[in-house]
Amino acid sequence: MAKKLWGGRFKKKTDPLVEEFSKSIDYDNKLAKYDLVGTAVHTLILKEAGFITKQEFSKFKKALEKIRKKIDSKDGFKFDPKCEDIHTNIQNMFEKEIGNLVLKLHTARSRNDQVLFDLKSYCKTSLSHTVELCGELMDTLLRVSKNNKDIHFPGYTHLQHAQIVYLHDYLEAYAEMLKRDAVRLNNVESSIKLSMGAGALSGVPINKDVYVKAIQKVMKFMGDYAEKWNAKDDVSPAIALDTVSDRDFVIEALSALAILGMHLSRISEELIIWSTKEFGFVEMDDAFATGSSLMPQKKNPDVLELIRGHAGTLYGNLMSVLTMMKGLPLSYNRDMQLDKPPLFSSFEIITKELKILPGLIKTIKWNKGAIAVAIEKDETLYATDLVYHLIEKGVPFKKAHDIIGRLVKYSLDSGKRIKKMSDNDLGRFSDKLKQKDIIKIMNPSRSVKSRISVKRKP
Amino acid sequence: MAKKLWGGRFKKKTDPLVEEFSKSIDYDNKLAKYDLVGTAVHTLILKEAGFITKQEFSKFKKALEKIRKKIDSKDGFKFDPKCEDIHTNIQNMFEKEIGNLVLKLHTARSRNDQVLFDLKSYCKTSLSHTVELCGELMDTLLRVSKNNKDIHFPGYTHLQHAQIVYLHDYLEAYAEMLKRDAVRLNNVESSIKLSMGAGALSGVPINKDVYVKAIQKVMKFMGDYAEKWNAKDDVSPAIALDTVSDRDFVIEALSALAILGMHLSRISEELIIWSTKEFGFVEMDDAFATGSSLMPQKKNPDVLELIRGHAGTLYGNLMSVLTMMKGLPLSYNRDMQLDKPPLFSSFEIITKELKILPGLIKTIKWNKGAIAVAIEKDETLYATDLVYHLIEKGVPFKKAHDIIGRLVKYSLDSGKRIKKMSDNDLGRFSDKLKQKDIIKIMNPSRSVKSRISVKRKP
Amino acid sequence: MAKKLWGGRFKKKTDPLVEEFSKSIDYDNKLAKYDLVGTAVHTLILKEAGFITKQEFSKFKKALEKIRKKIDSKDGFKFDPKCEDIHTNIQNMFEKEIGNLVLKLHTARSRNDQVLFDLKSYCKTSLSHTVELCGELMDTLLRVSKNNKDIHFPGYTHLQHAQIVYLHDYLEAYAEMLKRDAVRLNNVESSIKLSMGAGALSGVPINKDVYVKAIQKVMKFMGDYAEKWNAKDDVSPAIALDTVSDRDFVIEALSALAILGMHLSRISEELIIWSTKEFGFVEMDDAFATGSSLMPQKKNPDVLELIRGHAGTLYGNLMSVLTMMKGLPLSYNRDMQLDKPPLFSSFEIITKELKILPGLIKTIKWNKGAIAVAIEKDETLYATDLVYHLIEKGVPFKKAHDIIGRLVKYSLDSGKRIKKMSDNDLGRFSDKLKQKDIIKIMNPSRSVKSRISVKRKP
Amino acid sequence: MAKKLWGGRFKKKTDPLVEEFSKSIDYDNKLAKYDLVGTAVHTLILKEAGFITKQEFSKFKKALEKIRKKIDSKDGFKFDPKCEDIHTNIQNMFEKEIGNLVLKLHTARSRNDQVLFDLKSYCKTSLSHTVELCGELMDTLLRVSKNNKDIHFPGYTHLQHAQIVYLHDYLEAYAEMLKRDAVRLNNVESSIKLSMGAGALSGVPINKDVYVKAIQKVMKFMGDYAEKWNAKDDVSPAIALDTVSDRDFVIEALSALAILGMHLSRISEELIIWSTKEFGFVEMDDAFATGSSLMPQKKNPDVLELIRGHAGTLYGNLMSVLTMMKGLPLSYNRDMQLDKPPLFSSFEIITKELKILPGLIKTIKWNKGAIAVAIEKDETLYATDLVYHLIEKGVPFKKAHDIIGRLVKYSLDSGKRIKKMSDNDLGRFSDKLKQKDIIKIMNPSRSVKSRISVKRKP
Repeated sequence: MAKKLWGGRFKKKTDPLVEEFSKSIDYDNKLAKYDLVGTAVHTLILKEAGFITKQEFSKFKKALEKIRKKIDSKDGFKFDPKCEDIHTNIQNMFEKEIGNLVLKLHTARSRNDQVLFDLKSYCKTSLSHTVELCGELMDTLLRVSKNNKDIHFPGYTHLQHAQIVYLHDYLEAYAEMLKRDAVRLNNVESSIKLSMGAGALSGVPINKDVYVKAIQKVMKFMGDYAEKWNAKDDVSPAIALDTVSDRDFVIEALSALAILGMHLSRISEELIIWSTKEFGFVEMDDAFATGSSLMPQKKNPDVLELIRGHAGTLYGNLMSVLTMMKGLPLSYNRDMQLDKPPLFSSFEIITKELKILPGLIKTIKWNKGAIAVAIEKDETLYATDLVYHLIEKGVPFKKAHDIIGRLVKYSLDSGKRIKKMSDNDLGRFSDKLKQKDIIKIMNPSRSVKSRISVKRKP
Repeated sequence: MAKKLWGGRFKKKTDPLVEEFSKSIDYDNKLAKYDLVGTAVHTLILKEAGFITKQEFSKFKKALEKIRKKIDSKDGFKFDPKCEDIHTNIQNMFEKEIGNLVLKLHTARSRNDQVLFDLKSYCKTSLSHTVELCGELMDTLLRVSKNNKDIHFPGYTHLQHAQIVYLHDYLEAYAEMLKRDAVRLNNVESSIKLSMGAGALSGVPINKDVYVKAIQKVMKFMGDYAEKWNAKDDVSPAIALDTVSDRDFVIEALSALAILGMHLSRISEELIIWSTKEFGFVEMDDAFATGSSLMPQKKNPDVLELIRGHAGTLYGNLMSVLTMMKGLPLSYNRDMQLDKPPLFSSFEIITKELKILPGLIKTIKWNKGAIAVAIEKDETLYATDLVYHLIEKGVPFKKAHDIIGRLVKYSLDSGKRIKKMSDNDLGRFSDKLKQKDIIKIMNPSRSVKSRISVKRKP
Repeated sequence: MAKKLWGGRFKKKTDPLVEEFSKSIDYDNKLAKYDLVGTAVHTLILKEAGFITKQEFSKFKKALEKIRKKIDSKDGFKFDPKCEDIHTNIQNMFEKEIGNLVLKLHTARSRNDQVLFDLKSYCKTSLSHTVELCGELMDTLLRVSKNNKDIHFPGYTHLQHAQIVYLHDYLEAYAEMLKRDAVRLNNVESSIKLSMGAGALSGVPINKDVYVKAIQKVMKFMGDYAEKWNAKDDVSPAIALDTVSDRDFVIEALSALAILGMHLSRISEELIIWSTKEFGFVEMDDAFATGSSLMPQKKNPDVLELIRGHAGTLYGNLMSVLTMMKGLPLSYNRDMQLDKPPLFSSFEIITKELKILPGLIKTIKWNKGAIAVAIEKDETLYATDLVYHLIEKGVPFKKAHDIIGRLVKYSLDSGKRIKKMSDNDLGRFSDKLKQKDIIKIMNPSRSVKSRISVKRKP
Repeated sequence: MAKKLWGGRFKKKTDPLVEEFSKSIDYDNKLAKYDLVGTAVHTLILKEAGFITKQEFSKFKKALEKIRKKIDSKDGFKFDPKCEDIHTNIQNMFEKEIGNLVLKLHTARSRNDQVLFDLKSYCKTSLSHTVELCGELMDTLLRVSKNNKDIHFPGYTHLQHAQIVYLHDYLEAYAEMLKRDAVRLNNVESSIKLSMGAGALSGVPINKDVYVKAIQKVMKFMGDYAEKWNAKDDVSPAIALDTVSDRDFVIEALSALAILGMHLSRISEELIIWSTKEFGFVEMDDAFATGSSLMPQKKNPDVLELIRGHAGTLYGNLMSVLTMMKGLPLSYNRDMQLDKPPLFSSFEIITKELKILPGLIKTIKWNKGAIAVAIEKDETLYATDLVYHLIEKGVPFKKAHDIIGRLVKYSLDSGKRIKKMSDNDLGRFSDKLKQKDIIKIMNPSRSVKSRISVKRKP
């Protein structure tokens, strides 16, 4: 194990099992970039507060630039698995560049504070990115919706035929879910305030004004690395004890991702059902389906099944951080380190899902023939329209509901189509039912358009 | 079982086990009040749309007033357990008042729509109420904080002594958690848009403008029953398919309540630890503690334990609705009925907890003597201050950290108090350490005040 | 609030909010019956240990009989909502019968111990009952399976047609799941050992032998109330500290019930899909379906949807107790009181589900015509059989898989049925494919029977 | 992406995002060893069933040996990240050894079947290993318990002093929890039956007897690789549809691991509390504690905090698989692939925890002085003993409870020690209380030994 950031009062070496168990470098290496921004701000602060000289600051700055390039390098940053965490790793990189000067880096800076800055930065960036991806999937849905405008479609409740709607109603409903997700994720992003100077639990001996000034300057030499860090943020924390022990933002992000994943599981389930032989409404493109090692004919909706299944992973991740935080006394406790793997896992899953779905949805083949047949075959889709027809003729709703209920039952039992029934046949249910009217009513276009409470897009 | 809102096409009676299993009256009776407001709006709509006459509307209005009084009666509303749900129950109450006219009530109204209106109204009211209760607990915390201003207190990380802080820092940290909760709950409340006219899945044959007009008028005769329903809301839903199958607002509320419950579990855990014989920092008032049936001396923090334990209930409720929604195809499915018991349970638990805590916290006896002794006995609380002293003398942070680490270890092993060490003793660790300085540094007031990065209240 | 079992050292009355928050009588009244058995054993123990006289014991016994009758009365036991818990309630019932003698009842008995006895008894009884109900559902499934023997059925993987199986394969698979559940629940039941004498945390001053003797005798006067309590059990606990703080048995029961509920959610999902218009394989009996208040034609599988949705409730209940137990120090903590509501909820849900399903499944109408058509229309169900045919002719598996894959694709794209293809057509894929053979192979009965690795029932 | 095990009917190449999203090689490489055993059995079966010749079998066998050595090699097996899964990876390794002969390997073998064999083997092995580790931790606890025999210790309920117990009572209670865990894990292990021949969903055209024979032979050339696979197992599955879609064993394992992790979280919490400055009962060895980067004096129980926090990870893993399985229709669905990461995660966490705890517990320093003082200072620990003393003198329990309750209250309020009270003082509470008796009673050894209902170890 590489050098640690602590150790003076310890006589014995840490047990290797402890090092293995407690290290976080395997996952927190994702924070490298943000740790570097935080370090940039911190060196400026040390200079402003007089803890390092201008010359020392220059050396730090040069080292920062070099390390930044390494982290940005095309081959990707290779973290050192022997370090305890990414902070130690980056500190060691500094040591290589500036030798003993690195010993001053931890002045007025606790790991609690540092981790928090990194994690909040990661969260803000990832949330913004997820919002963008939601937008792209929404765009795809609305484009596919537009390209398949005004196709009548059986609308379901309880997975049973209910009323005729448009195919684009379904696609727009999916887009609407994602719109709520985007708003929700965006709200979580805005509510995260980056901070510094909380120390281990109650501040450090550097005036809060110094933090504000440092921020203005770090922009210049850190560029878009520093994008999420801005002067509006509440730099020095009001209540440091709370700041270092707060993980609400992690849970809020996990909760918003779980809801988003739930939406995607619903869309997936629906597409899986629609792509069965029996429904036959859609066919997945070969590029987005998989086969079977045993059965050569199979074309399986694996991607959708995995998205559906990952709802479990996303819920589990949320549950794991909620449980971890239960009953923890203030302020920081090491348990909190375990907030990272679930957070990273949820963002990665959602990112993959949102990247894969636009392609999958764009290339779906809509079997319009099968859809039309499904409607054509099922006269019961007009039952509610027939009820309203009777209401117009003065029958109270519940009575009308009853009459049409019995008419439908008779039709299903006898096999006689309602449209084909004579006025005589119909008269057995109500003398207000006439074949002529019924033929007009049982028309998909009329049916959908009669429901005028809904603001349909023009 | 009382009359049902459906049934025409059914030949057989529902199996009694099915009625027992699927009925929701035992819990959805909580929605009575909101169902009545919804019904008021709906009758107005029916009138405006010409489905009922002015005379019929007058009858509905009179019946509404009567039923309203019953529901508001002091003895509380006694729901009829033989009804399927609260909607049926209220419909039956109307039938008693207006006879067959009730048959028109379901015109252009689906239960999906109705349930949603009721549930969203319940949610908005309950969220606002919870925000108020959060505010009251915050007030209590800040008042107790003010009454115990500037009491030095051992600050903990990892439940180990870290640095000296103020007792009021802890109390303000609790208040800060609750502030975030209040903001979060408030945001959920604002994001819930009441709606009507979604029908079962795709609207009803009543123009959307009618909904907007109806709202203005319902205010007058429903008073504060209608408080949460206002014209700004998006009355007629853009995408009805989504509206009737969306339960995001339930999950968001459950998630915010779970986070709030987690905060309360942390405060409880801390108070439980502080009230142990060994800590002895606080004593609960007799009115807020309980005893043992076997051991007469016991004074147990049961309330706090139950609050801690209820984090489990709140998490379980969240998980249950998330799971229930996983993979549901559009639009409404009966599974969604199960959103109510967990939602009601979480609101009730949090309400009780927030009502009980102000009294409990106000009456806590702070054992200031024991707190002072805890600080007095532990010189290591100044270790960080000593490090900063060495830094001021030019020692780089990591080296200073090391020196003080060894000094502390020596003091603990040998039993020699640091304050009592001669310059000679101190010189073995660093020639920059002098007894005179150390005595100045190891002062609680100086220690806390030196951490100037934090915006402490004046 | 009625009298409490504790209070000597308390000066103030408990705050009414505390009483309301901490009382458990609203749910633990379910334990009345078991509390009475425990009390019967305890009075015998007190006699044997010399804490009460023979005469006093006689009075207790008479009171026990009276109270037992009240609890067993047809109208059901009306608990007193003003009591803290059921133990207090029963103690008060004793007081009415025997006056001050009741004051001796708590000798050598803690509530921890008492609750545990009651809860374990409830668990054992409920587990046994659930096992029985599993058995009944299995029987139904196997009977329906037998009545629908040898009906060919499309077997699905990924909800796509895979290979032909029997309808009874599906039903037997459901029964097999339930068999595992029954075994699992039974194992949990056996692993629960009733115990007494743990005291609050470390025993009481009564010799362990007394407990063993008392058990033999309690049988005689408590009859089947005492069915689960027998002499084989480990009466006096080895490690009392562990005994009073162990809730493993609750979690194990909740976990087994969650798995069972998951199985039922799968069966439900399948039946919901099969009862869609598009599949049309099954029709639910009117007695087990419900309608819509708006759409008269609807026949909805609400029961199955609720069973599917209740998987969420069952998972939430499990999660809630797991969370509640996380990080609790030994021994008893009040948090543990919250184990009851989720436990009761899970047992009640599962009980209802298992009671309703036999009737629902027995009355399902299997649309054999539709099932036959589904197979008839889909030649790809034989793809694997064709692969094996090629293997027999010497083609290696992967190559055969490839050939048939291309053949299937060609058939689907061109619309040509494989059975109708000439040797010439077939030859383009492999010269080993002959129409004559293909006609023999593409036979449902031959297809199913060829898979001889499976031990089918004769 | 490397070659796939399917593809004939597909015209287009799989989208790279799909490959990335659906591949499992990053985690299922852990199954390499078990996949090889399964393949060994399968080649034997193919030979017995006549699908490959003796010569071909010989080639397979040689290749098996070579691949086995690679997988066993010291540097560890390097899987090929370009493969879809471990099965493809191993198949490719065969291809390198035996060329086209590999094409026969998938005869009569589905991936569903193969995955299940591998996963069940992994589970059985890991469960057995976990049981062993539980045993080692139990041994440590009992050894430490023996080495610290008969040390009086304050027993807690509600984290409040209750009665005097032995330190070894606590340690034995921990061991008792682990004993239940070991039994539970062992039961899960026994209940898992390895199987083969289920095919994709309903068997393969190889007689079931062949499976039984193959097993006997594979032992000889696979050695301890095959340890868990034995002839007693139910080789060919009764209900293949159920076999391939059953993940109960994964959930049962995750549930048992969650309970075990919950136990470890409780032990950890207790040790964390005991190691606070205020309790001061234990001190962690330097090798098992960690420090702070800011505060040089800190010695933090990080290992215990991480164990406590990982309860969350373990619960989340359980929840994730339960959710994933909810509502899945039969038989195999791709969602099920997601059972592996949580399963592997839970086993790895528990393994690390069980490996680290024996060392940590063995090296704990018990501050017997501090423990003795805690008892000495608190006379209320004898309150129950005083109650029993009054009962012996004829006072009914509830009255005695009341008297001692008031005595304790008086002592706490006045600061007078009970032992120091004169008969006169005591007489104000009861004339049965005498100083002479009280001094005898308030003796730790007498106190513990009086509780004779518990079977203490000699």
